[in-house]
Amino acid sequence: MSDPTLQGAALDARVVAADHDRVLHSWSAQAHLPDFVVAGGLGSTVWNHEGRRWLDFSSQLVNTNIGHQHPAVVEAIREQASVLTTIAPSTANRTRAEAAERILARAPEGMRKVFFTNGGADAIENSIRMARLHTGRDKVVSTYRSYHGNTGAAVVATGDWRRIPNEFARGHVHVFGPYLYRSEFWATTVEEERDRALHHLERVIQAEGPTSVAAILLETIPGTAGVLVPPPGYLAGVREIADRYGIVLILDEVMAGFGRTGSWLALDQHDVRPDLVAFAKGVNSGYVPAGGVMVSAEIAATFDERVFPGGLTYSGHPLAMAAIVATLDAMEREGIVENAARVGRDVLGPGLAALAATNPLVGEVRGTGVFWAVELVSDRDTREPVSAATMADVKSRLLAAGYLPFVAENRVHVVPPCVITPDEARQGLDLLAGVLSDVAAAGTARVAAPAER
Amino acid sequence: MSDPTLQGAALDARVVAADHDRVLHSWSAQAHLPDFVVAGGLGSTVWNHEGRRWLDFSSQLVNTNIGHQHPAVVEAIREQASVLTTIAPSTANRTRAEAAERILARAPEGMRKVFFTNGGADAIENSIRMARLHTGRDKVVSTYRSYHGNTGAAVVATGDWRRIPNEFARGHVHVFGPYLYRSEFWATTVEEERDRALHHLERVIQAEGPTSVAAILLETIPGTAGVLVPPPGYLAGVREIADRYGIVLILDEVMAGFGRTGSWLALDQHDVRPDLVAFAKGVNSGYVPAGGVMVSAEIAATFDERVFPGGLTYSGHPLAMAAIVATLDAMEREGIVENAARVGRDVLGPGLAALAATNPLVGEVRGTGVFWAVELVSDRDTREPVSAATMADVKSRLLAAGYLPFVAENRVHVVPPCVITPDEARQGLDLLAGVLSDVAAAGTARVAAPAER
Ligand SMILES: Cc1ncc(COP(=O)(O)O)c(C=O)c1O
Ligand SMILES: Cc1ncc(COP(=O)(O)O)c(C=O)c1O
Repeated sequence: MSDPTLQGAALDARVVAADHDRVLHSWSAQAHLPDFVVAGGLGSTVWNHEGRRWLDFSSQLVNTNIGHQHPAVVEAIREQASVLTTIAPSTANRTRAEAAERILARAPEGMRKVFFTNGGADAIENSIRMARLHTGRDKVVSTYRSYHGNTGAAVVATGDWRRIPNEFARGHVHVFGPYLYRSEFWATTVEEERDRALHHLERVIQAEGPTSVAAILLETIPGTAGVLVPPPGYLAGVREIADRYGIVLILDEVMAGFGRTGSWLALDQHDVRPDLVAFAKGVNSGYVPAGGVMVSAEIAATFDERVFPGGLTYSGHPLAMAAIVATLDAMEREGIVENAARVGRDVLGPGLAALAATNPLVGEVRGTGVFWAVELVSDRDTREPVSAATMADVKSRLLAAGYLPFVAENRVHVVPPCVITPDEARQGLDLLAGVLSDVAAAGTARVAAPAER
Repeated sequence: MSDPTLQGAALDARVVAADHDRVLHSWSAQAHLPDFVVAGGLGSTVWNHEGRRWLDFSSQLVNTNIGHQHPAVVEAIREQASVLTTIAPSTANRTRAEAAERILARAPEGMRKVFFTNGGADAIENSIRMARLHTGRDKVVSTYRSYHGNTGAAVVATGDWRRIPNEFARGHVHVFGPYLYRSEFWATTVEEERDRALHHLERVIQAEGPTSVAAILLETIPGTAGVLVPPPGYLAGVREIADRYGIVLILDEVMAGFGRTGSWLALDQHDVRPDLVAFAKGVNSGYVPAGGVMVSAEIAATFDERVFPGGLTYSGHPLAMAAIVATLDAMEREGIVENAARVGRDVLGPGLAALAATNPLVGEVRGTGVFWAVELVSDRDTREPVSAATMADVKSRLLAAGYLPFVAENRVHVVPPCVITPDEARQGLDLLAGVLSDVAAAGTARVAAPAER
């Protein structure tokens, strides 16, 4: 890395070699890391040192809602860096108070305070902590199809495979959520799926002992699990169950929040009032690590005279706070949330529906705003997921075509930045449709081995 | 906050009001928050909007090792912000590879890779995860006098009061570490304390079942617990015990690392080779949230073909990485670690020894580099800690005198930035000595109530 004359493809190769040599990577076997370098980006595009460009239909880990290198956010970070980068959480700081104000202005009714963290996992940790101390109860009910972060409680609240090697926290119970396309409740209509999912949730709570349950923790729209938009009325039904048993309702808006769904929060599209909302990612597009919890007046009051026993060195970090203020202001000023809604309604929604109608690999498409999943199946009747090999083929063809995808299990998530233009969205959809039709035509789409299902 | 004409003391008051209204603070009862505003800083000084200045003898939460607003680090953040603020962890990125290189250059023998996190807690979470998966065992042995972070496993590995309302993780066992001034082993000499602490550790491991113990997790120098510099030979003895039973040794250098002790790592002053080193704070002085784990070759190899089941959206965040590179380069270039050693040896060490010799409130002083604790007692024979009220008095007098202190239980930790000049160090010591002599003269120092001890 020390040779300043290296450029272009040679520099990319050097960066990959240096990275793979010394950096241990998340959720991966280190002998099998991808060779992808990003040197820079702007809006919905990223590029490597060689100058190859990709349309970013991943928003990285679904976090760059405002796109890459938004000039107003970059400038705010640069300015704050010159004034004050860091300060202890216990001291009051102007930028932090402003960030809290901006967030509470978009919060659901009843929210009173914000607790700041570094990312999503610790937002979940602190939500769970608040719910437990507020109720004096232990258990947290979450869904199998979920991801909540990699730390002690967050990873056990998580339902997917990432929980299994990490199961060292107690007090976690999992249920199935609504997902009509692969119903766990033998349902055949949206209403049936909703009602049965609510029944199942309530039965589990009753069987666990309602007075032992501190919180129901749900992603408003389960994201990594497949953009599982809940049926109308489901979240309102969950709220009723929570109220019936005195349980705190935590909504995880880490991935779904701050523009992704075409509204400020995903919960704005549902008739539900949570007690706690965990956020991260979109709140400042991850330009500086940040996350947090919106806290209802009732729960905030629990900690007026009683010590809140949680904290972290960078809670309310000024640089992160400046990025929040600038991001939310720019999103407001530039109508970025409205853009996400419009692109979803006018381009991505209809375009993906057309794809589903014409490509035999597409089992279902679902989503809202710039938050969509395309589920690939080898047989539309049995809904058999395509194999991991097919997904790897789809991914490498998309990358070769200049489309940076977000791939999870048998799905391509269509999750570009909220700033994507209608033209870019159409361009991306064309690339996706082209690759999927090539893969379908190649006829190599294999049924998943049982372990992959 | 929206009134741009507000300035000076009025702006400070407004910031405090806005902050306390909307921000939920760490480790506090929200009705009793301090009224302290920081508007900016430079080197070892911070100021509020009114222009009042304090000598920062806290380094905030013992993290601004390079001082406030070091121009080279500020500039590196500003530059990186203009190029690329954020990118997904799975993509290779030049700055990340460079940060790993800089860290490994200061790592103990045998370290091969770095896993990056957002702070200290998640560095500990991932260290514990690696130790468990590497050994196939569950239990983690740590000390009662320790703090390791606020997330699920980290807070239960923690020994102090912060663990108690948060005890939802399994597999954690606590022991007493060496602390001669308040020995748990009826020891009267350093050697006795060391040998008995080692004996106690080994007996607990034997009684727990050595083949169930994945890791021994220790702060190299327990920090918040009182800068408990371990006796010579203690850490080498721990290494022997770990080897005898096939246990991974994790050293937590989050607070002690990167210059604080007058060496790059605290472990450099001890004859010990850990398997994993958790770091955060000093690695980039917290200018951008970052932490991580240095991983030995053996443990890194465990995850070559096997998936490492941990990760986070901002692992290896470019802005944080740029701050690491610039911080470590500036520390090297400007001899900042050597400065910390020199100030400790020539000013803080002798000055605090003189204070202990003359002020009856001082029970013990201990430390190294710019990492010291002054333990206040109401009776030097019984070593009875002074009361919380006395500590509050000491704290408010220090603040009034222009000295920003780090106070924990019955101690004042003397932990200025590593860049502090000998003159500033003398100035701070004079303020501290003055306040402590006033408090001693006032004769109000009360014995702690039993719960405070
Ligand atoms: C819904 C949800 N919650 C929590 C998290 C964890 O966030 P982080 O990676 O910042 O810890 C994620 C990350 O993808 C997420 O999607
Ligand atoms: C020794 C030690 N480990 C871990 C942590 C946790 O770090 P963070 O607050 O960044 O999560 C701290 C914080 O003070 C610490 O002192």
